[in-house]
Amino acid sequence: MNRKKTLKKTVRKALILICVFSIIPFGFAQKKRSKLIKNDNGVIESKIDSILPLLTLEEKVAMCHAQSKFSTKGVERLGIPEIWMSDGPHGVRAEISWDSWDYAGWTNDSITAFPALTCLAASFNPDMAAQFGKSIGEEALYREKDVLLGPGVNIYRTPLNGRNFEYLGEDPFLASTLVVPYIKGVQKNNVAACVKHFALNNQEHWRSSINVEASDRALHEIYLPAFKAAVQDAGVWAIMGAYNKFRGQYTTHHELLTKNILKKDWGFDGVVISDWSSAHNTMEAAVNGLDMEMGTGTDGLGTTTLNHYEYYYLASPFLKAIKEGTIEESVVNDKVRRILRLMYRTNMKPNRGYGRINNKEHHDVARKVAQEGITLLKNTNNFFPIEDKEGLTIAVIGENATRSMTAGGGSSELKPKFEISPLEGLKQRYKKAKIIHAMGYHTGPSVYDNIIPSKLNQDSLRIEAIETAKKADIVLYVGGLNKSHLQDCEGDDRQSYYLPYEQEEFINQLKAVNPNLGMLLVTGNAVKTPWLNQVNGLIQTWYLGSMAGYAIADVVSGDVNPSGKLPFSFPKKLDDNGAHSYGELSYPGDGTNQYYKEDILVGYRWFDTKKIEPQYAFGYGLSYTEFSISNIKTDNTKYSINDTITVTCNVTNIGKLEGAEVVQVYVGKPKSKVKRALKELKGFHKILLNSGSSKNVNINIPVSSLAYYDDSMANWNIEKGDYIVYVGNASNNITKQLKVSIK
Amino acid sequence: MNRKKTLKKTVRKALILICVFSIIPFGFAQKKRSKLIKNDNGVIESKIDSILPLLTLEEKVAMCHAQSKFSTKGVERLGIPEIWMSDGPHGVRAEISWDSWDYAGWTNDSITAFPALTCLAASFNPDMAAQFGKSIGEEALYREKDVLLGPGVNIYRTPLNGRNFEYLGEDPFLASTLVVPYIKGVQKNNVAACVKHFALNNQEHWRSSINVEASDRALHEIYLPAFKAAVQDAGVWAIMGAYNKFRGQYTTHHELLTKNILKKDWGFDGVVISDWSSAHNTMEAAVNGLDMEMGTGTDGLGTTTLNHYEYYYLASPFLKAIKEGTIEESVVNDKVRRILRLMYRTNMKPNRGYGRINNKEHHDVARKVAQEGITLLKNTNNFFPIEDKEGLTIAVIGENATRSMTAGGGSSELKPKFEISPLEGLKQRYKKAKIIHAMGYHTGPSVYDNIIPSKLNQDSLRIEAIETAKKADIVLYVGGLNKSHLQDCEGDDRQSYYLPYEQEEFINQLKAVNPNLGMLLVTGNAVKTPWLNQVNGLIQTWYLGSMAGYAIADVVSGDVNPSGKLPFSFPKKLDDNGAHSYGELSYPGDGTNQYYKEDILVGYRWFDTKKIEPQYAFGYGLSYTEFSISNIKTDNTKYSINDTITVTCNVTNIGKLEGAEVVQVYVGKPKSKVKRALKELKGFHKILLNSGSSKNVNINIPVSSLAYYDDSMANWNIEKGDYIVYVGNASNNITKQLKVSIK
Repeated sequence: MNRKKTLKKTVRKALILICVFSIIPFGFAQKKRSKLIKNDNGVIESKIDSILPLLTLEEKVAMCHAQSKFSTKGVERLGIPEIWMSDGPHGVRAEISWDSWDYAGWTNDSITAFPALTCLAASFNPDMAAQFGKSIGEEALYREKDVLLGPGVNIYRTPLNGRNFEYLGEDPFLASTLVVPYIKGVQKNNVAACVKHFALNNQEHWRSSINVEASDRALHEIYLPAFKAAVQDAGVWAIMGAYNKFRGQYTTHHELLTKNILKKDWGFDGVVISDWSSAHNTMEAAVNGLDMEMGTGTDGLGTTTLNHYEYYYLASPFLKAIKEGTIEESVVNDKVRRILRLMYRTNMKPNRGYGRINNKEHHDVARKVAQEGITLLKNTNNFFPIEDKEGLTIAVIGENATRSMTAGGGSSELKPKFEISPLEGLKQRYKKAKIIHAMGYHTGPSVYDNIIPSKLNQDSLRIEAIETAKKADIVLYVGGLNKSHLQDCEGDDRQSYYLPYEQEEFINQLKAVNPNLGMLLVTGNAVKTPWLNQVNGLIQTWYLGSMAGYAIADVVSGDVNPSGKLPFSFPKKLDDNGAHSYGELSYPGDGTNQYYKEDILVGYRWFDTKKIEPQYAFGYGLSYTEFSISNIKTDNTKYSINDTITVTCNVTNIGKLEGAEVVQVYVGKPKSKVKRALKELKGFHKILLNSGSSKNVNINIPVSSLAYYDDSMANWNIEKGDYIVYVGNASNNITKQLKVSIK
Repeated sequence: MNRKKTLKKTVRKALILICVFSIIPFGFAQKKRSKLIKNDNGVIESKIDSILPLLTLEEKVAMCHAQSKFSTKGVERLGIPEIWMSDGPHGVRAEISWDSWDYAGWTNDSITAFPALTCLAASFNPDMAAQFGKSIGEEALYREKDVLLGPGVNIYRTPLNGRNFEYLGEDPFLASTLVVPYIKGVQKNNVAACVKHFALNNQEHWRSSINVEASDRALHEIYLPAFKAAVQDAGVWAIMGAYNKFRGQYTTHHELLTKNILKKDWGFDGVVISDWSSAHNTMEAAVNGLDMEMGTGTDGLGTTTLNHYEYYYLASPFLKAIKEGTIEESVVNDKVRRILRLMYRTNMKPNRGYGRINNKEHHDVARKVAQEGITLLKNTNNFFPIEDKEGLTIAVIGENATRSMTAGGGSSELKPKFEISPLEGLKQRYKKAKIIHAMGYHTGPSVYDNIIPSKLNQDSLRIEAIETAKKADIVLYVGGLNKSHLQDCEGDDRQSYYLPYEQEEFINQLKAVNPNLGMLLVTGNAVKTPWLNQVNGLIQTWYLGSMAGYAIADVVSGDVNPSGKLPFSFPKKLDDNGAHSYGELSYPGDGTNQYYKEDILVGYRWFDTKKIEPQYAFGYGLSYTEFSISNIKTDNTKYSINDTITVTCNVTNIGKLEGAEVVQVYVGKPKSKVKRALKELKGFHKILLNSGSSKNVNINIPVSSLAYYDDSMANWNIEKGDYIVYVGNASNNITKQLKVSIK
């Protein structure tokens, strides 16, 4: 009988535990615990230093990979929480099942759907990005998410990319300028943004396997700047790897991209998260900087094995390699340090707050971003705005007048509390005029893997629509793409630059019966516009989320004056686009490799440089009023490399209505020793002006931002000599060119 | 074009909003928000005053009923969180689906299973309750639960009640003494305990409909004290209504119970939560104090309607009644005030912490509670402890040696990270002796609605067991009940007081082949023991959770000296029990009504008063050592009603081993003007003593605690005159009686 001994042992153990408690974060030692886990007064790193030695190797490895579709393990015995993530970037996605892609069937996950990021880009307004980020961050927080999987800043390279609507357009400066306030806004809520997809994931077709070959210049000048701004200017806490390869290696664990550029050169101190199933190799994941592996299908096991997460590249194989000494323990320590750092910034942040959802302010932000992003492309004889008056009949035609655009699209699919359709928005706005409606065609639900109806056989819908159009004074055709597979949708690319569903023929038919025809183009991509002459007015509405119909009615009615500018070019035909000018090896590749042959000449850089006229140019967008930009000057004509060029001008609203204009400053170097685009966007400023009023605008351009990436130096190089500063309100509408020289 | 006007309006609205923000908890006004929602420095009520006017009637009503199986809505637009609950009380239940009883299939919800509450009661140790509560509260917190649905303090009235194992025994003083530290321990974590089931839910049979008739004295003296202690001494933040009726009205929204006694007389300031589907009437729920309705099946709609929660009694019908003026808005305001108060105490508490799960400390607490609750009932010729020695063969026989006792049982079912079976625990402890094992019988999985095999036809298992027993030096039969339907399981009662599965015959067979037979009785209830003479040793092991086998091996081996005392009587036959002495109208009732005819004479009160000898008495439990209680005195012989009687005695360990004894003080009033039990427990103290050592024990008994409930006064009444103080170590083993008088 050794009860006495047992008791003594217990006392000794208790004493040891008390000692241990004095340095570890247990609930039993509340004070010490809060000191370690909960206090972040600038001493996060030393807190992590204290925690790391307490973790077993197994616990550390477990933090580096998923435990479910959207969460990773904490350390339950120490009270270190789990990390929960949600797809973004336009709203917080509905709850997904623990271990399948089925929705979980909760009823507390209806959120505010914000406009798609292309619309935010079209606003050319960083304040909109700040409000967007802050609001979506609050919604993520209320939904108890620690990481919001967005925003996306992959550069718009081809109008066929199914996922362009989730990105910020074709220009790295525009994307950089908007992504920073978005991220800061999200992270203000102690929710991590996770900028994606790093990098060169510029098409959905073959995304899981395609190897991208691109020059260092294209990489650094075009495809990386927005990521770099996210890291260095916004201080983003997480970044998501991409599916594709680059120069033969998967980008999610890439020696050059994630290890050297992101972590070493840029000093990223956050967490690299794989895209769902983008990791492919334990050793590469370990040493090239992937910190957290999500969604891996565990080849050969699929999701049929209960513990398939244990088979992840950063799970058992990682543990085994560390135990065998193939991988050093410092590797997992670095990953866990980053993960704990993210946690101190998010779910272990004291007094984190609760967030909120579906409040009026968020709806207002969604509407405001939509109002500022909607882009007026054509307005013959002031077709828009359409006044609400007695006796007027407006026929609103087309499936997109009522179709949900938050359903479908892939991982950005949302479950909004409500989504005001264009038809509903117009009906609510127009009280005197009569709104009539016909669908014209229908394409079935937005199912991720559905297929395009090969031949629409919907004559009765078409006939009804034509008859409806005949009865109206004005026809508003609401067309475009939708969120179905092979349209604006993750997982594959569009198969044609044309509008789908025989819309061209339909538009022609509508025009034939009612020439007073205008169009709302609902897309996240450029489309071919052979039907353009048929419409008197054309508004690019993007995907606008919860408040879509209200914002559209705001602009259509003239309550709001459109001020959006295109964040990407509309080529007249697909081959006019740089990526498509070199045949299939350039896009979509040969199934194994693809070559970015247009190199740095992406988007308007291509059109400008190659002197190809686009249908609609980058930065283009009309207003219901008119502006003049005058007195355009630089503060000097000669600058040294550390200077900042200040461009000033005077913007006057010379029309009859209040409105906003975007002054755009591009810079080019005519005589360069390297290939250059004719001009590149280096600054812009959006300004709201009453009718008749005038304001000065200053735009600052650091000379350093004129550098090109010098392959031979593997660094940025500011070429001396003369540069041209182009100032205007669109890339193809330059009011004045100014010469400056850099010494 | 009224853009200008719109802008002006927007500015005006913004100004109004700024004013509003200055008093409301919006994220946009972070400072004010944190001041209102997050600060609880003694000004919770004024914060609630500020929030209440901001809520719409719809939002307030929505907070008063479920939105899913285990959660209620917050106010998403204001950032007021949801409330999440989990079944207790022995561990935090696995995640349940949003809107069905299916488990959600998560893998992060494996927890520590603590011993069942009967075991805690048997420990007679409030410190064990405190550690239990603190630990389970930490586990609830890590699991992000705001309300733990436990502990249960329904009084053990009949050994047939399927849910006795979840309660704290038959004595109101014992239950009160243990429930208070349990609740305080849970709530220390900013997790609400929810004491249940209020009240008179003392059987599972017909629980949803049976109407209980009991006297005011039985109510106040027997069935309510533990609830009152939970409210007034522990400050519990939530209480759960019961299924049954009392005096014709459902207890969950009961004019006397919830409205008058609980909220008015006791001053309960927390939230009354219905049991799942225990609410039955909107008006009663509204005015009789139900604050939160959960689990209602919405008759006629079932769970087939997506929005069936809207049909809850405290949902649409409640809203409608308020709108129509049938119910005043102050009614919902009071409920929401209580709910917000609970939130300020839990999920809106600043710096709430994270909790932890499955840490060594929790496992140690589970083991320690088990060690202190395990009760040695018989030990002929020191059958126990069994020494581990070479050459010894121990046959461990019986299904309960390996059966999981955390699976099944109803809502208290758990998904522990591990559960050490008795066999496994013994195998790990005995290194020299040989452990052999046979199952003897098997009863299938613990499915909620399974049925007892009517006739076990398992001869081969039985034969194998007999053969195994023959080969051993010692046979340990591990028998008892299990967690299947109609055993120790929620939803219905046991159908017999006998052991099931033909165990009596089995024990006889084992005895016949090996008379060196001892038994581990795994139950949460008393059972009939006609086989008692067949076993030399008998240990009541209860249900012990994760550490079951370890704790059992601790006691069987003698590493730990048993110190548990029975928290309820074992009658020799069922009719000896008070509730069963009056026929079926007393138990289980006639299908509509039941009458608590034994009145206040529950448990040992009945046996004592009626002079019926129980098989094992309340408070009884052996030790491997022996104690003497001597020098028993009261500090005085005459007391006035505001005095406290201090009983002192000297406890000496006169045996050879360290061990703990429970000094129990009962008080009776021989010549009373009202019916009295012979004696009632009024104080106890557990003391650990080394062999040969001696300590003084003081037990304080406020004279006020000797009051009886006077129906005529509707209040407590301290009768003057002589009382007998009984001091001993079991209700049937009184060392000394002392007379005191109250003036």
